[in-house]
Amino acid sequence: MSLVLDPRAQDLLFREARTANAFSAEPVTDEQVQAIYDLVKYGPTAFNQTPLRIVLVRSAESRERLVDHMAEGNKAKTASAPLVAILAADNEFHEELPALLPHFPQAKDLFFSERPVREQSASMNAALQAAYFIVGVRAAGLAAGPMTGFDFAGVQKEFLDDDHTPLMVVNIGKPGEDASFPRSPRLDFDQVVSTV
Amino acid sequence: MSLVLDPRAQDLLFREARTANAFSAEPVTDEQVQAIYDLVKYGPTAFNQTPLRIVLVRSAESRERLVDHMAEGNKAKTASAPLVAILAADNEFHEELPALLPHFPQAKDLFFSERPVREQSASMNAALQAAYFIVGVRAAGLAAGPMTGFDFAGVQKEFLDDDHTPLMVVNIGKPGEDASFPRSPRLDFDQVVSTV
Repeated sequence: MSLVLDPRAQDLLFREARTANAFSAEPVTDEQVQAIYDLVKYGPTAFNQTPLRIVLVRSAESRERLVDHMAEGNKAKTASAPLVAILAADNEFHEELPALLPHFPQAKDLFFSERPVREQSASMNAALQAAYFIVGVRAAGLAAGPMTGFDFAGVQKEFLDDDHTPLMVVNIGKPGEDASFPRSPRLDFDQVVSTV
Repeated sequence: MSLVLDPRAQDLLFREARTANAFSAEPVTDEQVQAIYDLVKYGPTAFNQTPLRIVLVRSAESRERLVDHMAEGNKAKTASAPLVAILAADNEFHEELPALLPHFPQAKDLFFSERPVREQSASMNAALQAAYFIVGVRAAGLAAGPMTGFDFAGVQKEFLDDDHTPLMVVNIGKPGEDASFPRSPRLDFDQVVSTV
């Protein structure tokens, strides 16, 4: 075995973890979300930027508004998941850079003075953080159901603002019955990795 | 404890894992890279797309060519790391979708017939996969040193083609002496997470 990570942890995070489309009724608490965040906040990003923002959609009224913007095939599971989170990228993340990168506070002005540069960096690095978050949901013994099938402009208008771009909506909870499709194939190592 | 992942695994992947800027001389084998890929290939993406491509820069001549395109502050560590990988997004990933999503082969033509849509999807989902890869490097007991400080057009021209966009270059190996800066601060839970 070339991995040092415990095989049960490999299973929990990757091999047996599955995207869930149905959930049990068991709630997901704020304490669980905090434990997830306090673990995955250490995942690396460029210049230690932290563009990921997480909106927990908890009230019945907010949940209804969100479901309205989901694609037809995503409505039922978004309506019934114990917790739904909107993950977004903060395009004004550079304001926090001097605090987050104390040994190189000039990075804010040297690299991120232009909005299009910031938008690209925010979207890339928030995506890295979204992946860490999904791994963290699994580390909490929960299943994630990440979705990109929704009206992005509608979700931005209802739940965010011009400075925050939605990335994905994630259903979170304990998997219910028939929660997952059969595992789809993956590309082989030789289709993905080359050597020069 | 709200997490079910073993605390030692939490440390290995997030809490004690650090971005490395210096490495020991111990080589990183192809078997290790294969074990990493065979674990993290299960990380979820939209439509099960697999846009991430990994170029292992192994020959001395290739390493020199890559170092030429790195930013000044990244040259020395890229020259000396046991292994360097270029992570890229395949903008023609849709060709594989019918094989990767056998229950919904129409997704290829329904959603990804236009190149700009593919480029955005490839870059977002390859970023998710890059984050899973970094977690996998750590699962192998190695340290990753991801970098975006390089000439993207130059690296694309030298090592890729018009259909493949570089995302980052990652140094990989066992950390050497003084491998990491002191841990920089992270945003608090309340700065990142809100509830509606």
